[in-house]
Amino acid sequence: MRTKNQINLSEDDIVTKWYNILPDLPEPLPPPKDPDEGESRLEMLPKLMINECLKQDASDQRWIDIPEEVQELYAKAGRPRPLFRATKLEEKLNTPAKLYYKSEFYSPTGSHKVNTALAQAYYAKKEGYERLTTETGAGQWGTALAYAASIAGLKCKVFWVRAVHDWKEDRRNLMHFYGAEVHASPSSKTSAGRELLKEDPKHPGSLGIAVSEGLEDAENDEKAVYCLGSVLNHVLTHQTIIGLETQKQFEKIDAYPDIVISCLGGGSNFGGFTIPFLRDAIKGKDIKFIAAQSTAAPNLQGKYEYDFADYAEHTPLLKMYTIGHKTRMDPIWGDGLRYHGCAPILSLLRNKGYIDTIAYPSDEKYVFERARLFLQTEGFLPAPESAYSIACAIDEAVECKRNNEEKIIAFNISGHGFMDMEGYRKVLGM
Amino acid sequence: MRTKNQINLSEDDIVTKWYNILPDLPEPLPPPKDPDEGESRLEMLPKLMINECLKQDASDQRWIDIPEEVQELYAKAGRPRPLFRATKLEEKLNTPAKLYYKSEFYSPTGSHKVNTALAQAYYAKKEGYERLTTETGAGQWGTALAYAASIAGLKCKVFWVRAVHDWKEDRRNLMHFYGAEVHASPSSKTSAGRELLKEDPKHPGSLGIAVSEGLEDAENDEKAVYCLGSVLNHVLTHQTIIGLETQKQFEKIDAYPDIVISCLGGGSNFGGFTIPFLRDAIKGKDIKFIAAQSTAAPNLQGKYEYDFADYAEHTPLLKMYTIGHKTRMDPIWGDGLRYHGCAPILSLLRNKGYIDTIAYPSDEKYVFERARLFLQTEGFLPAPESAYSIACAIDEAVECKRNNEEKIIAFNISGHGFMDMEGYRKVLGM
Repeated sequence: MRTKNQINLSEDDIVTKWYNILPDLPEPLPPPKDPDEGESRLEMLPKLMINECLKQDASDQRWIDIPEEVQELYAKAGRPRPLFRATKLEEKLNTPAKLYYKSEFYSPTGSHKVNTALAQAYYAKKEGYERLTTETGAGQWGTALAYAASIAGLKCKVFWVRAVHDWKEDRRNLMHFYGAEVHASPSSKTSAGRELLKEDPKHPGSLGIAVSEGLEDAENDEKAVYCLGSVLNHVLTHQTIIGLETQKQFEKIDAYPDIVISCLGGGSNFGGFTIPFLRDAIKGKDIKFIAAQSTAAPNLQGKYEYDFADYAEHTPLLKMYTIGHKTRMDPIWGDGLRYHGCAPILSLLRNKGYIDTIAYPSDEKYVFERARLFLQTEGFLPAPESAYSIACAIDEAVECKRNNEEKIIAFNISGHGFMDMEGYRKVLGM
Repeated sequence: MRTKNQINLSEDDIVTKWYNILPDLPEPLPPPKDPDEGESRLEMLPKLMINECLKQDASDQRWIDIPEEVQELYAKAGRPRPLFRATKLEEKLNTPAKLYYKSEFYSPTGSHKVNTALAQAYYAKKEGYERLTTETGAGQWGTALAYAASIAGLKCKVFWVRAVHDWKEDRRNLMHFYGAEVHASPSSKTSAGRELLKEDPKHPGSLGIAVSEGLEDAENDEKAVYCLGSVLNHVLTHQTIIGLETQKQFEKIDAYPDIVISCLGGGSNFGGFTIPFLRDAIKGKDIKFIAAQSTAAPNLQGKYEYDFADYAEHTPLLKMYTIGHKTRMDPIWGDGLRYHGCAPILSLLRNKGYIDTIAYPSDEKYVFERARLFLQTEGFLPAPESAYSIACAIDEAVECKRNNEEKIIAFNISGHGFMDMEGYRKVLGM
């Protein structure tokens, strides 16, 4: 029997190159720049980050070979991942639309973050580093890097925003289980951290502070290198594996999506899923892209201007849609969406009119109720962040019903929610 | 690139029939029977259970068609699941053995239990039932049935041993999230439960008591049917999908395992993985089978005799290896292995010398340390039960190193551990 519920790729369809959209953008991407005052951030980067990644950040090469070793690691991590047709959800919604979702939740650590973590760990080892260091907010990135480091035989240190670190005990233990060293940030391990702890020994921390600590850590140990999990071009390029697989899967069934949806925080998931489709849109194909966001951080609805990527202004300035790097954001369970700025590549395309945005209320009832509908029909437990993709896909499917349009809607489930039941329980009152 | 890390099946290789080993057993399976005293358990069964399942329990048909609708549901649940080569673990162990593991952890609810839950929900609906009722111990079976009921549009009631129900908050909420009604057992919903609550309002419950409540619930509502997640022949038959896929995957790489390993509680996981290979062993092929167990419940090291399947003696007597249905068992984190008896089919084959057994210490340090080694090399987080499969596979791989033997070892990871971090933390002191 040929099933319509799951579309898979054969060995002949394995994706062997990442897609770098830089040469295909409608205009050149505004480069990162230094602020007018203070020391140069740009000059520091080569000492702190992986050279191959910095090279990819500015590459004009359209297709970048995925090293064979990384291809093997992707296979080990369960790639390619299935594309599912949401037949039961369609029935429930009684919509003429056809819904397809990509299963990034089928990941060893539970999210799409492994796609770039494995690549970065590989390059870091090749360049002679013995240790990876990073920051993490929600914890998905820290877990993915701990995993990738462990597989590569590298050490890993994670500076984790204390306010999140302290309550996500299971996720913290998972990082430890992978062998990573995890510090609540601000920590006593860096001078930046110690300064802040002097002011307040229980300082809750912030992503910006954690970035500072990671950078300082890499600066003080030549065997360590700093890794980032979103925003930057090379991260989005690595994540295109998601969209490239999805395109091949649609080819298999001789179909092409009319609407492409995913949730958006810094942009690594949204970019990874949509960029190969955006390439076709730039060439003239009629596709609607929607970034599902939270009113807590509707960065694509902010201003398109140069801003710091972190709270503490340790990074270069990036031209991006931003609500301001000092803006206070409401806490939400979909913490991975809680970021002030959007990846420069996606920001440019938003500015050129290619990407729509919707922001859902930060109490998360609307999105979590739609996650429940998805769970009860399709069976998979989405991460809180992925609930936003689902809500948006359902909204569009309902709109198709209203207009009696048989559109094809593709969305990505970037992670699973097995470690996030607390949020669902509290919001839905289970 | 042809990867050696992951072996997948194409659409042409989809398994469309379950394998029923009954006609191929070396001698007829001793049938279930009533105890000498009390009312007949066997006569009650057709009123309480799914007729198609009871029919399959006694079928002499070697191959049972998987209904097309169930095939679609399997596809929706991510089947077929990859077979992975544990290359990184092999390197770490420096063993000449080749290790392969099946990824049942890639399941919507996190375990292999969905394979029979989907089939049972399908048959129940076809037979006109509106509600499924069951008991659960560790919670994996209750979650899987809640999931299957939800997808089928059926109601579901789960009687969950109170001692486990009360602390597994996330898993309980996941069942609620699927729309199931979950009761700590003993509950006030049945006369059996009310009797026990009179004695002790905080009665910790037992699997036997929960079985009684489920049976009573089904008896009192003609729209409800009772479902079981292990031990019985039809459950093992549905689970053969695991081993049948694995055999096809080995065919793809022109290999055949010398040693086949999985953990064993009631036998649904062990049976599902091994029975297609046991068929070849019965025909004369030289394969070693090892059931990985806990000293808390080494049922295959018990006596081969008729015993009740539950503590409270509500079930018929089954001829099986048992440590006694009234035996007190130490608590362990791999709670799914904590059962006094082993499925009759596997018990017969054990008795005929086809299946070896090893029981690991119930403090679980030994098995959890090997789960850590697996996590840090292969990247996937196993369920505590699956840690036993891993420990056994590693033991055999080390033995191969000692003897310089290039054996092929196949083992099954029956579930993931994202909801079981507490056990790992407490045992390993993270």
